[in-house]
Amino acid sequence: MMNISFPDGAVRSYEKGTTALDIAKSISEGLARKVLVASVNNKVVDATLPIEEDAEIKFLTWDSEEGKNTFWHSTAHLMAEAIEAIFPGVKFWVGPALEKGFYYDMDLGDRKITEEDLLAIEKKMVELAKQNNAFIRKPISKNEAIEYFTSKGDEYKLDLLGNLADGNITLYTQGAFTDLCRGPHLPQTGFIKALKLTNIAGAYWKGDEKNKMLTRLYGVSFPAQKELDEYLLMLEEAKKRDHRKLGKELGIYTTNDDIGQGLILWMPNGTVIIEELEKLAKETENAAGYKRVVTPHIAKESLYLTSGHLPYYADSMFPPMEMDGEKYYLKAMNCPHHHKIFDAEPKSYRDMPYRIAEYGTCYRYEQSGELFGLMRVRCLHMNDAHIYCTKEQFMQEFKAVNDMYVKYFKIFGIDKYVMRLSLHDPEKLGQKYVNEPALWLETEALVRNVLIETGVPFVEVKGEGAFYGPKIDVQIWSAIGREFTLATNQVDFAQPRSFNLSFTNKDNEPEIPLIIHRAPLGTHERFIGFLLEHYAGKFPVWIAPLQVKVLPISDKFLDYALDVMQQLRNAGVRVEIDDRQEKIGRKIRDTELQRVPYMLVVGEKEMNEQQVSVRRQGKGDLGSVTLLEFIEKIKEEIQERKSGE
Amino acid sequence: MMNISFPDGAVRSYEKGTTALDIAKSISEGLARKVLVASVNNKVVDATLPIEEDAEIKFLTWDSEEGKNTFWHSTAHLMAEAIEAIFPGVKFWVGPALEKGFYYDMDLGDRKITEEDLLAIEKKMVELAKQNNAFIRKPISKNEAIEYFTSKGDEYKLDLLGNLADGNITLYTQGAFTDLCRGPHLPQTGFIKALKLTNIAGAYWKGDEKNKMLTRLYGVSFPAQKELDEYLLMLEEAKKRDHRKLGKELGIYTTNDDIGQGLILWMPNGTVIIEELEKLAKETENAAGYKRVVTPHIAKESLYLTSGHLPYYADSMFPPMEMDGEKYYLKAMNCPHHHKIFDAEPKSYRDMPYRIAEYGTCYRYEQSGELFGLMRVRCLHMNDAHIYCTKEQFMQEFKAVNDMYVKYFKIFGIDKYVMRLSLHDPEKLGQKYVNEPALWLETEALVRNVLIETGVPFVEVKGEGAFYGPKIDVQIWSAIGREFTLATNQVDFAQPRSFNLSFTNKDNEPEIPLIIHRAPLGTHERFIGFLLEHYAGKFPVWIAPLQVKVLPISDKFLDYALDVMQQLRNAGVRVEIDDRQEKIGRKIRDTELQRVPYMLVVGEKEMNEQQVSVRRQGKGDLGSVTLLEFIEKIKEEIQERKSGE
Repeated sequence: MMNISFPDGAVRSYEKGTTALDIAKSISEGLARKVLVASVNNKVVDATLPIEEDAEIKFLTWDSEEGKNTFWHSTAHLMAEAIEAIFPGVKFWVGPALEKGFYYDMDLGDRKITEEDLLAIEKKMVELAKQNNAFIRKPISKNEAIEYFTSKGDEYKLDLLGNLADGNITLYTQGAFTDLCRGPHLPQTGFIKALKLTNIAGAYWKGDEKNKMLTRLYGVSFPAQKELDEYLLMLEEAKKRDHRKLGKELGIYTTNDDIGQGLILWMPNGTVIIEELEKLAKETENAAGYKRVVTPHIAKESLYLTSGHLPYYADSMFPPMEMDGEKYYLKAMNCPHHHKIFDAEPKSYRDMPYRIAEYGTCYRYEQSGELFGLMRVRCLHMNDAHIYCTKEQFMQEFKAVNDMYVKYFKIFGIDKYVMRLSLHDPEKLGQKYVNEPALWLETEALVRNVLIETGVPFVEVKGEGAFYGPKIDVQIWSAIGREFTLATNQVDFAQPRSFNLSFTNKDNEPEIPLIIHRAPLGTHERFIGFLLEHYAGKFPVWIAPLQVKVLPISDKFLDYALDVMQQLRNAGVRVEIDDRQEKIGRKIRDTELQRVPYMLVVGEKEMNEQQVSVRRQGKGDLGSVTLLEFIEKIKEEIQERKSGE
Repeated sequence: MMNISFPDGAVRSYEKGTTALDIAKSISEGLARKVLVASVNNKVVDATLPIEEDAEIKFLTWDSEEGKNTFWHSTAHLMAEAIEAIFPGVKFWVGPALEKGFYYDMDLGDRKITEEDLLAIEKKMVELAKQNNAFIRKPISKNEAIEYFTSKGDEYKLDLLGNLADGNITLYTQGAFTDLCRGPHLPQTGFIKALKLTNIAGAYWKGDEKNKMLTRLYGVSFPAQKELDEYLLMLEEAKKRDHRKLGKELGIYTTNDDIGQGLILWMPNGTVIIEELEKLAKETENAAGYKRVVTPHIAKESLYLTSGHLPYYADSMFPPMEMDGEKYYLKAMNCPHHHKIFDAEPKSYRDMPYRIAEYGTCYRYEQSGELFGLMRVRCLHMNDAHIYCTKEQFMQEFKAVNDMYVKYFKIFGIDKYVMRLSLHDPEKLGQKYVNEPALWLETEALVRNVLIETGVPFVEVKGEGAFYGPKIDVQIWSAIGREFTLATNQVDFAQPRSFNLSFTNKDNEPEIPLIIHRAPLGTHERFIGFLLEHYAGKFPVWIAPLQVKVLPISDKFLDYALDVMQQLRNAGVRVEIDDRQEKIGRKIRDTELQRVPYMLVVGEKEMNEQQVSVRRQGKGDLGSVTLLEFIEKIKEEIQERKSGE
């Protein structure tokens, strides 16, 4: 017998060789139907793998990241099986799970996959899924494996085998298809209830353009048809809301070849949004006791050697400029500059916490192929701040930052979010992570406690911390359910040491502060990209580039329309007039396209009664009110940053 | 006889060979006493030089730049005469006039000049000035000149002679001193009524550190003792108001070796000033119909090749970063980025004038020896904007910009200013200036007309235009009478062509716009440096980093003091409390040093009557008022940006 411990602390006894799936069945058939894969002693394995010793066990379902990964990776195998049935002789390279879905790279020889082929493959996949074949794992010696793939003439799998150690090699078979794979996989193909092949692309073997071009086939799959339908609907809606399309249509941003890829030029309408976001941030940070600073965009090499960014982060920085015999770098982050400001005047415990904020502009090198609209850029305007505090102050400060996130989410109508607590990986101390094991554990515990106390939803992930301490990445979902990783909130116990930062404590001794790095609104680039999709370009009034358009029915009412515009402008409203010689219907349609929140139609009746006829974007006619009433109403809507729902 | 024309258009006839000085005397003895040098047919020459043909003549006095230059250069000769008398065998290199004063570089052999020597030289100079010796000009052939200086053993003047063409060489003698010099000079040494030697420094011969170190002696001189006294007083006051000293004391800015020279880190107090300036600029520009944009700090080489900055301006730019096989440069100006925004969407006459503004951050390479506090830096935050307009709109737009300058001057209490209209030099077309002679003349005339029409004080200077068009540099004087070149206002007819910018005019034809480059508040760096001196760190309330400090007389009144602080904060006032356990006298003294405009002292009486006892920085006790009265008063002072005088 062996003892199996469950996440709730319960321990039960089972025969050795029992599988996670059997254990699930022993609890309930309903649970067993949902188990995709299992965590056994913190290792993710097939749910059908016999367990031979005492173990901590966790059932992983569709709700877990590992469950989804396994689901999609198994669907990649299913796709390969279908393709092999339709295109005999095809050779496969690798087929990983993605953030959403999967792909498989393959060598089809001279053949090309057409749209009809895709449908045929999908059909075959559905058929094979219904067969509900088991995924069967088979450990194999390296020699046997080489013999097997040599006999198949599969140079790709032989290449993969070259990098694998004997004793660690497994094959997986479902139905008629066998693949070299470390797993894990679903118990059977029948778990896959709904699927869709989404894209065909070319991909050089091993990403090297000197190699052969392989065919990459993308797909996505779900445990129920409803989920696939929802996903496809979301994709369709996301296409309509594509921030690149809206960004151009609404005059938000542009780029230019002579300036460079990934370098955003913010047009007047985008700049209004930037300024409203900065105003919000400044108000919020001012109320929370932050001071503001302004720092240059470059610094000498020595600064980044001190911070450790250069050895750890060089690939993501722009190349240096050589001047006066020194190397200058564009800053990829604001922290080292801020540390120098902290250090410019002596600090005592009376100065702590010392909170300094800056919408700092950073430059990061991204491969040109990775650049994407506002989402992946090379110049970022970051809602940055650094809080230098004592260990005693840390909990309260970190909690205040978390509260600020939640406050922002409310303003922007972000209902769904998760804080992703990224921890260090003890095996990579000294490489990816500063080699301070005790400090890692201590600060990770502090952060975890804050998250538990504040009751925000969070998950923990090992091996994704910043190099100087644990971090929280904030994932948010847009109105149409697309996920964005936006903001970050990090603890840093390493840089205060490397920069020799200290304050004089109450005992008149020098003491090293902790630093919190935080950026609740992320970068203007990514956040405005998110907002474009989230609002489908229909911004709430307070942040809309143009808030009101006055539409005179004819030239006869132009004077009154101008008067209306002037009064609104005096009240601080962003307003324009449509004084073209066009029919009112045309003016309304054009203004709708510009996504202006309010249209004020003015004609004979409105002029005589000092009224305006109000149309709300997307809601149509709201009837007539006096101009003064409208001004009061819109001022309140702006002041309170109402969402407009 | 010859005809002499005067600036007022009058023409008179004189004997050939008459000098400008004689002509002045023929008009009035009073005038002649003021003539330092003369402009004859647009060439500046000795007033004592015989005129041999018809000429346009202008008498240049102390009020002109050329008059001052000649005065100071002649004083350099006077100093050399005195030094030669005291240190026989001294050899002189060059002795030019400066913006304020003069210097002379000399080789004293092994001798050093001491403080006592300085007094002796000054005394000797006064004595020689009183001799009222004439400056006598003598043309000399190159051979004779070489012979003369060879016999004197003066290798420095021989070196200078090497670069001079025969026929163009003159000696000047006053009293016992003869120098190789192209002149011009004062008529006699007696014009120099007051002088002061200000500084001794070392300077490598020809600025090359491999050469011998020469002694550089600086001085300044005036036509009257009163002017010297005023100047020395101003220098003393300027020292107290030194922006580098105040900048540190008041926590305005700092720099750091690891970041780099000339790269300003704006501390929290400096950032408040920056934000108030930007708020002022945004309000002003918004009311004037500008839109705002945000652009990156880098661009590809091709952008600066198009703009022409790279060939014309490469020395002032930072070196490039090589990335993805391209060169990227830090921007030294915002214009090319703005042109790309103008060009991003098609424009029609309805969009003109198109005014876009940005507090853009530019990077300019300055020699490290040239860097100076906030005045000469490598990173500049510029109050930039570009106005794209039609030729018909130009006058009105340019005038509106000028009016904006004057509006700002009023806010900052700048009473003395001059607009310096810098024109092209026809001889340098195609080198320093875009080769468009007709466009130069046309736009220069347009700009001159605006200046004449608006009636602002202005001077014209040839050969100082921007390379793309005429410009106006604005010179302002601080409260203590020191001159600063601050802002700029330029016309550009060249870049619209090189960037292929156009709009569709009313005839449905493409038309090239004119561009106005303007920066009334200059750069944050230079303007805040100016303001520190101008206000001696005692900023008006609206822009003061800290506006109010609440000083409780003892801990008993701390609660009331906190209440006062909170009410002020709610009213948007920047306020802190001095809650230290110190006597009230000490609190007042410390707050005075911080230059906080208002101190509110609160004790028993104030608490009981809900009052505050008001002290105004520099003015002392203003008596008690209710807190509400004080809040109303300070809100008004802030709102109206009162100067506080």
